Amino acid sequence: MNHSNGKVFLVGAGPGAADLITVRGMKLLQQADIVFHDALIDPQMLEFCNQAILIPVGKRCGRHSTAQAFINKRLIDASQKHQIIVRLKGGDPMIFGRADEEISALESAGIDVEVVPGITAALAASASLKQSLTLRGVSRSVAFFTHVKAENQEIAVLPEADTLVIYMGRSESEMIAKKLLDQGKSEDTPVQIIEAISTKHERRLSLTLKEMHEGAALTWFNQDSPALLLVGAVFRNRLQDSEILTNRRLYG
Amino acid sequence: MNHSNGKVFLVGAGPGAADLITVRGMKLLQQADIVFHDALIDPQMLEFCNQAILIPVGKRCGRHSTAQAFINKRLIDASQKHQIIVRLKGGDPMIFGRADEEISALESAGIDVEVVPGITAALAASASLKQSLTLRGVSRSVAFFTHVKAENQEIAVLPEADTLVIYMGRSESEMIAKKLLDQGKSEDTPVQIIEAISTKHERRLSLTLKEMHEGAALTWFNQDSPALLLVGAVFRNRLQDSEILTNRRLYG
Repeated sequence: MNHSNGKVFLVGAGPGAADLITVRGMKLLQQADIVFHDALIDPQMLEFCNQAILIPVGKRCGRHSTAQAFINKRLIDASQKHQIIVRLKGGDPMIFGRADEEISALESAGIDVEVVPGITAALAASASLKQSLTLRGVSRSVAFFTHVKAENQEIAVLPEADTLVIYMGRSESEMIAKKLLDQGKSEDTPVQIIEAISTKHERRLSLTLKEMHEGAALTWFNQDSPALLLVGAVFRNRLQDSEILTNRRLYG
Repeated sequence: MNHSNGKVFLVGAGPGAADLITVRGMKLLQQADIVFHDALIDPQMLEFCNQAILIPVGKRCGRHSTAQAFINKRLIDASQKHQIIVRLKGGDPMIFGRADEEISALESAGIDVEVVPGITAALAASASLKQSLTLRGVSRSVAFFTHVKAENQEIAVLPEADTLVIYMGRSESEMIAKKLLDQGKSEDTPVQIIEAISTKHERRLSLTLKEMHEGAALTWFNQDSPALLLVGAVFRNRLQDSEILTNRRLYG
Protein backbone atom coordinates (compact mmCIF):
# COMPACT_ATOMS: atom_id res chain seq x y z
CA MET A 1 0.00 0.00 0.00
CA ASN A 2 2.70 2.49 0.98
CA HIS A 3 4.50 3.61 -2.18
CA SER A 4 6.24 6.52 -0.45
CA ASN A 5 9.15 6.58 1.96
CA GLY A 6 8.05 9.25 4.33
CA LYS A 7 5.95 9.18 7.46
CA VAL A 8 3.79 12.08 8.58
CA PHE A 9 3.57 12.97 12.27
CA LEU A 10 0.65 15.14 13.35
CA VAL A 11 2.13 16.78 16.42
CA GLY A 12 0.28 18.88 19.00
CA ALA A 13 2.24 22.05 19.75
CA GLY A 14 0.29 22.71 22.94
CA PRO A 15 -1.36 25.97 23.99
CA GLY A 16 1.36 28.45 23.10
CA ALA A 17 4.48 28.37 25.30
CA ALA A 18 7.41 26.67 23.55
CA ASP A 19 8.10 24.34 26.50
CA LEU A 20 4.53 23.01 26.70
CA ILE A 21 5.08 20.68 23.73
CA THR A 22 5.73 17.05 24.74
CA VAL A 23 9.24 15.61 24.82
CA ARG A 24 8.19 13.28 21.96
CA GLY A 25 6.98 16.25 19.92
CA MET A 26 10.22 18.18 20.53
CA LYS A 27 12.34 15.19 19.47
CA LEU A 28 10.34 14.82 16.25
CA LEU A 29 10.86 18.51 15.49
CA GLN A 30 14.61 18.00 16.02
CA GLN A 31 14.62 15.08 13.54
CA ALA A 32 12.20 16.47 10.96
CA ASP A 33 13.11 17.03 7.32
CA ILE A 34 10.18 19.38 6.80
CA VAL A 35 7.68 21.00 9.17
CA PHE A 36 4.28 22.37 8.16
CA HIS A 37 3.17 24.59 11.03
CA ASP A 38 0.15 26.68 11.98
CA ALA A 39 0.74 30.41 11.65
CA LEU A 40 0.35 31.04 15.40
CA ILE A 41 3.19 28.75 16.57
CA ASP A 42 5.74 30.46 18.88
CA PRO A 43 9.00 31.18 16.94
CA GLN A 44 10.91 29.79 19.97
CA MET A 45 9.33 26.40 19.37
CA LEU A 46 10.42 26.47 15.73
CA GLU A 47 14.03 26.80 16.96
CA PHE A 48 13.78 23.09 17.86
CA CYS A 49 13.71 22.39 14.11
CA ASN A 50 16.25 24.82 12.65
CA GLN A 51 17.52 21.99 10.42
CA ALA A 52 14.13 21.49 8.74
CA ILE A 53 12.35 23.21 5.87
CA LEU A 54 9.67 25.35 7.54
CA ILE A 55 6.34 25.92 5.82
CA PRO A 56 3.70 28.07 7.53
CA VAL A 57 0.17 26.96 6.73
CA GLY A 58 -3.32 27.88 7.78
CA LYS A 59 -5.34 28.90 10.76
CA ARG A 60 -4.59 32.40 11.90
CA CYS A 61 -7.49 33.17 14.19
CA GLY A 62 -10.20 33.48 11.55
CA ARG A 63 -8.09 35.49 9.10
CA HIS A 64 -6.41 34.26 5.95
CA SER A 65 -5.84 30.53 6.07
CA THR A 66 -4.50 27.98 3.65
CA ALA A 67 -7.27 25.79 2.24
CA GLN A 68 -7.40 22.34 3.86
CA ALA A 69 -7.27 20.47 0.55
CA PHE A 70 -4.09 22.32 -0.38
CA ILE A 71 -2.46 21.44 2.99
CA ASN A 72 -3.41 17.77 2.42
CA LYS A 73 -1.82 17.82 -1.03
CA ARG A 74 1.40 19.40 0.23
CA LEU A 75 1.68 16.76 2.99
CA ILE A 76 1.27 13.98 0.43
CA ASP A 77 3.82 15.56 -1.91
CA ALA A 78 6.30 15.99 0.96
CA SER A 79 6.05 12.31 1.85
CA GLN A 80 7.41 11.39 -1.60
CA LYS A 81 10.57 13.44 -1.04
CA HIS A 82 11.24 13.33 2.70
CA GLN A 83 11.50 10.78 5.52
CA ILE A 84 10.14 12.63 8.54
CA ILE A 85 7.35 15.10 7.88
CA VAL A 86 5.89 16.97 10.85
CA ARG A 87 2.52 18.70 10.73
CA LEU A 88 2.67 20.92 13.82
CA LYS A 89 -0.78 22.01 14.99
CA GLY A 90 -1.70 24.36 17.84
CA GLY A 91 -3.12 22.72 20.97
CA ASP A 92 -3.98 19.04 20.55
CA PRO A 93 -4.38 17.88 16.94
CA MET A 94 -7.54 15.91 17.76
CA ILE A 95 -9.53 18.60 19.61
CA PHE A 96 -11.26 20.84 17.04
CA GLY A 97 -8.19 20.61 14.81
CA ARG A 98 -9.68 19.04 11.65
CA ALA A 99 -6.98 16.37 11.89
CA ASP A 100 -9.40 13.76 10.54
CA GLU A 101 -9.30 15.38 7.12
CA GLU A 102 -5.50 15.24 7.03
CA ILE A 103 -5.39 11.66 8.36
CA SER A 104 -7.97 10.44 5.81
CA ALA A 105 -6.19 12.10 2.91
CA LEU A 106 -2.83 10.63 3.93
CA GLU A 107 -4.16 7.12 4.61
CA SER A 108 -6.03 7.13 1.28
CA ALA A 109 -2.69 7.90 -0.38
CA GLY A 110 -1.06 4.96 1.45
CA ILE A 111 1.10 7.13 3.70
CA ASP A 112 1.93 6.23 7.31
CA VAL A 113 0.52 8.66 9.86
CA GLU A 114 1.13 8.93 13.58
CA VAL A 115 -0.48 11.37 16.01
CA VAL A 116 1.40 12.89 18.96
CA PRO A 117 -1.01 14.49 21.42
CA GLY A 118 -0.62 18.04 22.74
CA ILE A 119 -1.82 20.04 25.73
CA THR A 120 -5.21 21.40 24.75
CA ALA A 121 -6.11 24.97 25.74
CA ALA A 122 -8.67 23.88 28.37
CA LEU A 123 -5.98 22.08 30.39
CA ALA A 124 -3.55 25.01 30.15
CA ALA A 125 -6.33 27.38 31.30
CA SER A 126 -7.11 25.12 34.23
CA ALA A 127 -3.40 25.05 35.20
CA SER A 128 -3.10 28.83 34.88
CA LEU A 129 -6.18 29.39 37.06
CA LYS A 130 -5.04 26.67 39.49
CA GLN A 131 -8.64 25.48 39.35
CA SER A 132 -9.54 22.01 38.17
CA LEU A 133 -12.46 21.70 35.78
CA THR A 134 -14.17 19.13 37.98
CA LEU A 135 -14.44 19.37 41.75
CA ARG A 136 -16.05 17.15 44.38
CA GLY A 137 -19.45 18.44 45.34
CA VAL A 138 -19.42 21.15 42.65
CA SER A 139 -18.74 19.67 39.22
CA ARG A 140 -18.71 16.05 38.15
CA SER A 141 -18.25 16.55 34.41
CA VAL A 142 -16.67 18.86 31.87
CA ALA A 143 -17.61 19.31 28.21
CA PHE A 144 -15.73 20.97 25.35
CA PHE A 145 -17.46 22.41 22.30
CA THR A 146 -17.10 25.02 19.60
CA HIS A 147 -19.14 26.99 17.07
CA VAL A 148 -22.75 27.13 18.15
CA LYS A 149 -23.77 28.22 14.69
CA ALA A 150 -23.24 25.50 12.10
CA GLU A 151 -22.35 26.15 8.46
CA ASN A 152 -26.05 25.81 7.59
CA GLN A 153 -26.75 28.59 10.18
CA GLU A 154 -28.55 26.16 12.47
CA ILE A 155 -28.00 26.84 16.19
CA ALA A 156 -26.74 23.72 17.98
CA VAL A 157 -28.00 22.22 21.20
CA LEU A 158 -25.16 22.78 23.64
CA PRO A 159 -23.86 19.89 25.72
CA GLU A 160 -25.08 19.49 29.30
CA ALA A 161 -22.24 19.29 31.80
CA ASP A 162 -21.32 20.98 35.06
CA THR A 163 -18.32 22.79 33.55
CA LEU A 164 -18.27 23.95 29.93
CA VAL A 165 -15.28 25.01 27.86
CA ILE A 166 -15.92 26.77 24.57
CA TYR A 167 -13.14 26.92 21.98
CA MET A 168 -13.01 29.75 19.42
CA GLY A 169 -16.13 31.28 20.97
CA ARG A 170 -15.15 34.95 20.83
CA SER A 171 -17.43 35.98 18.00
CA GLU A 172 -20.35 34.04 19.47
CA SER A 173 -20.03 34.95 23.16
CA GLU A 174 -23.48 36.58 23.44
CA MET A 175 -25.23 33.78 21.55
CA ILE A 176 -23.48 31.10 23.61
CA ALA A 177 -24.53 32.79 26.85
CA LYS A 178 -28.12 33.08 25.62
CA LYS A 179 -28.23 29.37 24.72
CA LEU A 180 -26.78 28.36 28.10
CA LEU A 181 -29.32 30.52 29.94
CA ASP A 182 -32.11 29.02 27.80
CA GLN A 183 -30.82 25.52 28.64
CA GLY A 184 -31.07 26.24 32.37
CA LYS A 185 -27.74 27.66 33.58
CA SER A 186 -28.30 30.40 36.15
CA GLU A 187 -27.55 34.06 35.39
CA ASP A 188 -24.85 34.32 38.05
CA THR A 189 -22.87 31.33 36.74
CA PRO A 190 -19.21 32.44 36.73
CA VAL A 191 -17.45 32.78 33.39
CA GLN A 192 -13.68 33.02 32.89
CA ILE A 193 -12.36 34.18 29.55
CA ILE A 194 -8.68 33.54 28.84
CA GLU A 195 -6.82 34.95 25.87
CA ALA A 196 -3.41 33.88 24.55
CA ILE A 197 -3.08 31.16 27.20
CA SER A 198 0.44 30.34 28.43
CA THR A 199 2.04 33.17 26.41
CA LYS A 200 3.36 36.49 27.71
CA HIS A 201 0.19 38.10 26.34
CA GLU A 202 -2.12 35.97 28.51
CA ARG A 203 -5.12 37.97 29.83
CA ARG A 204 -8.15 36.89 31.84
CA LEU A 205 -11.57 38.31 32.48
CA SER A 206 -14.15 37.27 35.08
CA LEU A 207 -17.82 37.94 34.52
CA THR A 208 -21.22 36.29 34.88
CA LEU A 209 -23.18 34.45 32.24
CA LYS A 210 -25.78 37.27 32.35
CA GLU A 211 -23.09 39.86 31.65
CA MET A 212 -21.65 37.83 28.79
CA HIS A 213 -25.17 37.62 27.34
CA GLU A 214 -25.41 41.44 27.55
CA GLY A 215 -22.24 41.74 25.47
CA ALA A 216 -19.98 42.76 28.35
CA ALA A 217 -16.95 40.89 26.98
CA LEU A 218 -17.08 42.33 23.48
CA THR A 219 -14.89 45.38 24.03
CA TRP A 220 -12.39 43.44 26.15
CA PHE A 221 -11.32 40.96 23.49
CA ASN A 222 -8.07 41.52 21.64
CA GLN A 223 -8.82 40.63 18.03
CA ASP A 224 -5.32 39.20 17.47
CA SER A 225 -5.46 36.47 20.14
CA PRO A 226 -7.37 33.23 20.45
CA ALA A 227 -9.78 33.14 23.39
CA LEU A 228 -11.25 30.35 25.48
CA LEU A 229 -14.52 30.70 27.41
CA LEU A 230 -14.93 28.65 30.60
CA VAL A 231 -18.31 28.46 32.32
CA GLY A 232 -19.23 26.86 35.62
CA ALA A 233 -19.50 27.08 39.40
CA VAL A 234 -15.94 25.76 39.87
CA PHE A 235 -14.61 29.18 38.85
CA ARG A 236 -16.13 30.96 41.86
CA ASN A 237 -12.96 30.40 43.90
CA ARG A 238 -10.42 31.86 41.51
CA LEU A 239 -11.90 35.20 40.54
CA GLN A 240 -9.44 37.27 42.52
CA ASP A 241 -6.71 36.28 40.06
CA SER A 242 -8.45 37.75 37.01
CA GLU A 243 -9.60 41.19 35.94
CA ILE A 244 -13.05 41.79 37.36
CA LEU A 245 -15.47 43.40 35.00
CA THR A 246 -16.25 47.12 35.52
CA ASN A 247 -14.03 47.33 38.61
CA ARG A 248 -16.53 45.81 40.98
CA ARG A 249 -16.44 42.49 42.70
CA LEU A 250 -19.07 40.31 41.19
CA TYR A 251 -18.91 37.50 43.72
CA GLY A 252 -18.51 37.27 47.50
CA MET B 1 2.78 35.10 53.80
CA ASN B 2 5.41 32.72 52.49
CA HIS B 3 7.59 31.61 55.39
CA SER B 4 9.19 28.75 53.48
CA ASN B 5 11.78 28.75 50.73
CA GLY B 6 10.46 26.03 48.51
CA LYS B 7 8.01 26.08 45.65
CA VAL B 8 5.80 23.12 44.79
CA PHE B 9 5.16 22.23 41.14
CA LEU B 10 2.18 20.00 40.40
CA VAL B 11 3.32 18.38 37.18
CA GLY B 12 1.23 16.25 34.83
CA ALA B 13 3.15 13.12 33.85
CA GLY B 14 0.86 12.43 30.90
CA PRO B 15 -0.84 9.13 30.05
CA GLY B 16 2.03 6.69 30.62
CA ALA B 17 4.87 6.84 28.08
CA ALA B 18 7.94 8.60 29.48
CA ASP B 19 8.24 10.95 26.48
CA LEU B 20 4.66 12.19 26.69
CA ILE B 21 5.49 14.54 29.57
CA THR B 22 5.94 18.18 28.51
CA VAL B 23 9.39 19.70 28.02
CA ARG B 24 8.63 22.00 30.98
CA GLY B 25 7.72 19.02 33.14
CA MET B 26 10.91 17.14 32.15
CA LYS B 27 13.08 20.17 32.98
CA LEU B 28 11.46 20.51 36.40
CA LEU B 29 12.14 16.84 37.08
CA GLN B 30 15.80 17.42 36.12
CA GLN B 31 16.03 20.34 38.60
CA ALA B 32 13.96 18.91 41.44
CA ASP B 33 15.30 18.36 44.94
CA ILE B 34 12.50 15.96 45.79
CA VAL B 35 9.77 14.28 43.73
CA PHE B 36 6.54 12.83 45.14
CA HIS B 37 5.15 10.59 42.40
CA ASP B 38 2.07 8.45 41.79
CA ALA B 39 2.79 4.74 42.05
CA LEU B 40 1.98 4.10 38.37
CA ILE B 41 4.62 6.45 36.89
CA ASP B 42 6.92 4.77 34.31
CA PRO B 43 10.39 4.14 35.84
CA GLN B 44 11.89 5.55 32.62
CA MET B 45 10.33 8.92 33.42
CA LEU B 46 11.86 8.85 36.88
CA GLU B 47 15.30 8.61 35.26
CA PHE B 48 14.87 12.31 34.39
CA CYS B 49 15.23 13.01 38.13
CA ASN B 50 17.97 10.64 39.27
CA GLN B 51 19.42 13.48 41.36
CA ALA B 52 16.24 13.91 43.41
CA ILE B 53 14.85 12.16 46.46
CA LEU B 54 12.03 9.97 45.12
CA ILE B 55 8.92 9.34 47.21
CA PRO B 56 6.16 7.12 45.81
CA VAL B 57 2.72 8.15 47.02
CA GLY B 58 -0.85 7.14 46.39
CA LYS B 59 -3.16 6.09 43.66
CA ARG B 60 -2.51 2.64 42.43
CA CYS B 61 -5.63 1.80 40.49
CA GLY B 62 -7.98 1.43 43.43
CA ARG B 63 -5.54 -0.53 45.59
CA HIS B 64 -3.49 0.74 48.49
CA SER B 65 -3.09 4.50 48.35
CA THR B 66 -1.54 7.07 50.60
CA ALA B 67 -4.17 9.23 52.33
CA GLN B 68 -4.56 12.65 50.75
CA ALA B 69 -4.08 14.52 54.04
CA PHE B 70 -0.77 12.72 54.57
CA ILE B 71 0.42 13.65 51.05
CA ASN B 72 -0.52 17.28 51.73
CA LYS B 73 1.46 17.27 54.97
CA ARG B 74 4.54 15.76 53.33
CA LEU B 75 4.45 18.39 50.57
CA ILE B 76 4.28 21.18 53.17
CA ASP B 77 7.12 19.65 55.20
CA ALA B 78 9.26 19.27 52.07
CA SER B 79 8.84 22.96 51.20
CA GLN B 80 10.56 23.90 54.47
CA LYS B 81 13.66 21.90 53.53
CA HIS B 82 13.89 22.03 49.74
CA GLN B 83 13.79 24.59 46.92
CA ILE B 84 12.12 22.70 44.09
CA ILE B 85 9.48 20.18 45.06
CA VAL B 86 7.72 18.28 42.28
CA ARG B 87 4.41 16.47 42.79
CA LEU B 88 4.25 14.25 39.69
CA LYS B 89 0.71 13.09 38.92
CA GLY B 90 -0.47 10.72 36.20
CA GLY B 91 -2.29 12.36 33.26
CA ASP B 92 -3.18 16.00 33.77
CA PRO B 93 -3.19 17.15 37.42
CA MET B 94 -6.46 19.07 36.96
CA ILE B 95 -8.58 16.31 35.35
CA PHE B 96 -9.96 14.05 38.10
CA GLY B 97 -6.66 14.36 39.97
CA ARG B 98 -7.80 15.89 43.26
CA ALA B 99 -5.21 18.61 42.73
CA ASP B 100 -7.51 21.17 44.36
CA GLU B 101 -6.99 19.54 47.74
CA GLU B 102 -3.20 19.77 47.40
CA ILE B 103 -3.32 23.35 46.07
CA SER B 104 -5.62 24.52 48.89
CA ALA B 105 -3.48 22.90 51.57
CA LEU B 106 -0.28 24.43 50.17
CA GLU B 107 -1.76 27.92 49.65
CA SER B 108 -3.22 27.87 53.17
CA ALA B 109 0.30 27.17 54.43
CA GLY B 110 1.64 30.14 52.43
CA ILE B 111 3.56 28.02 49.95
CA ASP B 112 3.95 28.95 46.27
CA VAL B 113 2.32 26.47 43.89
CA GLU B 114 2.48 26.22 40.13
CA VAL B 115 0.66 23.74 37.90
CA VAL B 116 2.22 22.25 34.75
CA PRO B 117 -0.42 20.60 32.58
CA GLY B 118 -0.11 17.06 31.23
CA ILE B 119 -1.61 15.03 28.39
CA THR B 120 -4.84 13.62 29.75
CA ALA B 121 -5.77 10.02 28.86
CA ALA B 122 -8.64 11.05 26.54
CA LEU B 123 -6.25 12.91 24.23
CA ALA B 124 -3.75 10.03 24.19
CA ALA B 125 -6.58 7.61 23.36
CA SER B 126 -7.74 9.84 20.53
CA ALA B 127 -4.18 9.98 19.15
CA SER B 128 -3.76 6.22 19.44
CA LEU B 129 -7.06 5.59 17.62
CA LYS B 130 -6.27 8.33 15.08
CA GLN B 131 -9.85 9.44 15.62
CA SER B 132 -10.69 12.91 16.90
CA LEU B 133 -13.31 13.15 19.62
CA THR B 134 -15.32 15.69 17.62
CA LEU B 135 -16.04 15.43 13.91
CA ARG B 136 -17.98 17.61 11.51
CA GLY B 137 -21.44 16.26 10.94
CA VAL B 138 -21.04 13.54 13.60
CA SER B 139 -19.99 15.04 16.94
CA ARG B 140 -19.90 18.67 17.98
CA SER B 141 -19.01 18.19 21.64
CA VAL B 142 -17.10 15.91 23.99
CA ALA B 143 -17.59 15.44 27.74
CA PHE B 144 -15.36 13.82 30.36
CA PHE B 145 -16.69 12.35 33.58
CA THR B 146 -15.97 9.74 36.22
CA HIS B 147 -17.68 7.74 38.96
CA VAL B 148 -21.38 7.52 38.29
CA LYS B 149 -21.98 6.42 41.85
CA ALA B 150 -21.20 9.16 44.37
CA GLU B 151 -19.91 8.54 47.87
CA ASN B 152 -23.47 8.80 49.16
CA GLN B 153 -24.41 6.00 46.69
CA GLU B 154 -26.53 8.37 44.59
CA ILE B 155 -26.38 7.70 40.85
CA ALA B 156 -25.39 10.85 38.95
CA VAL B 157 -27.06 12.32 35.89
CA LEU B 158 -24.50 11.81 33.14
CA PRO B 159 -23.51 14.74 30.93
CA GLU B 160 -25.14 15.11 27.52
CA ALA B 161 -22.62 15.37 24.71
CA ASP B 162 -22.04 13.68 21.35
CA THR B 163 -18.86 11.95 22.50
CA LEU B 164 -18.35 10.79 26.09
CA VAL B 165 -15.13 9.79 27.81
CA ILE B 166 -15.33 8.01 31.15
CA TYR B 167 -12.28 7.93 33.39
CA MET B 168 -11.80 5.11 35.92
CA GLY B 169 -15.04 3.52 34.74
CA ARG B 170 -13.98 -0.14 34.76
CA SER B 171 -15.88 -1.22 37.85
CA GLU B 172 -19.00 0.66 36.70
CA SER B 173 -19.09 -0.24 33.01
CA GLU B 174 -22.52 -1.94 33.12
CA MET B 175 -24.11 0.82 35.20
CA ILE B 176 -22.65 3.53 32.96
CA ALA B 177 -24.03 1.81 29.86
CA LYS B 178 -27.45 1.45 31.49
CA LYS B 179 -27.54 5.15 32.40
CA LEU B 180 -26.50 6.19 28.89
CA LEU B 181 -29.19 3.97 27.34
CA ASP B 182 -31.73 5.43 29.79
CA GLN B 183 -30.64 8.95 28.81
CA GLY B 184 -31.30 8.22 25.13
CA LYS B 185 -28.10 6.88 23.54
CA SER B 186 -28.89 4.12 21.05
CA GLU B 187 -27.98 0.47 21.72
CA ASP B 188 -25.60 0.28 18.76
CA THR B 189 -23.55 3.30 19.84
CA PRO B 190 -19.90 2.27 19.44
CA VAL B 191 -17.74 1.97 22.56
CA GLN B 192 -13.96 1.83 22.62
CA ILE B 193 -12.22 0.69 25.77
CA ILE B 194 -8.51 1.40 26.06
CA GLU B 195 -6.28 0.04 28.79
CA ALA B 196 -2.77 1.18 29.70
CA ILE B 197 -2.80 3.91 27.05
CA SER B 198 0.54 4.77 25.43
CA THR B 199 2.41 1.99 27.23
CA LYS B 200 3.65 -1.30 25.79
CA HIS B 201 0.69 -2.97 27.52
CA GLU B 202 -1.91 -0.90 25.63
CA ARG B 203 -4.99 -2.95 24.67
CA ARG B 204 -8.24 -1.93 23.01
CA LEU B 205 -11.69 -3.43 22.78
CA SER B 206 -14.56 -2.44 20.50
CA LEU B 207 -18.14 -3.20 21.46
CA THR B 208 -21.59 -1.61 21.50
CA LEU B 209 -23.28 0.18 24.35
CA LYS B 210 -25.81 -2.69 24.53
CA GLU B 211 -23.00 -5.23 24.91
CA MET B 212 -21.29 -3.16 27.60
CA HIS B 213 -24.61 -3.02 29.44
CA GLU B 214 -24.80 -6.83 29.25
CA GLY B 215 -21.40 -7.08 30.95
CA ALA B 216 -19.46 -8.05 27.84
CA ALA B 217 -16.35 -6.11 28.85
CA LEU B 218 -16.03 -7.56 32.33
CA THR B 219 -13.85 -10.56 31.54
CA TRP B 220 -11.68 -8.57 29.15
CA PHE B 221 -10.35 -6.07 31.68
CA ASN B 222 -6.89 -6.54 33.15
CA GLN B 223 -7.24 -5.66 36.81
CA ASP B 224 -3.74 -4.16 36.97
CA SER B 225 -4.23 -1.45 34.35
CA PRO B 226 -6.25 1.76 34.25
CA ALA B 227 -8.97 1.80 31.60
CA LEU B 228 -10.74 4.55 29.70
CA LEU B 229 -14.21 4.12 28.16
CA LEU B 230 -15.02 6.15 25.04
CA VAL B 231 -18.58 6.27 23.72
CA GLY B 232 -19.89 7.85 20.54
CA ALA B 233 -20.61 7.63 16.83
CA VAL B 234 -17.15 9.02 15.95
CA PHE B 235 -15.65 5.62 16.79
CA ARG B 236 -17.46 3.82 13.99
CA ASN B 237 -14.56 4.44 11.59
CA ARG B 238 -11.75 3.02 13.67
CA LEU B 239 -13.04 -0.34 14.79
CA GLN B 240 -10.76 -2.36 12.55
CA ASP B 241 -7.80 -1.29 14.69
CA SER B 242 -9.14 -2.82 17.91
CA GLU B 243 -10.06 -6.27 19.12
CA ILE B 244 -13.64 -6.97 18.12
CA LEU B 245 -15.74 -8.62 20.74
CA THR B 246 -16.50 -12.34 20.32
CA ASN B 247 -14.61 -12.54 17.02
CA ARG B 248 -17.37 -11.08 14.92
CA ARG B 249 -17.57 -7.75 13.21
CA LEU B 250 -20.07 -5.63 15.00
CA TYR B 251 -20.25 -2.83 12.50
CA GLY B 252 -20.24 -2.58 8.70
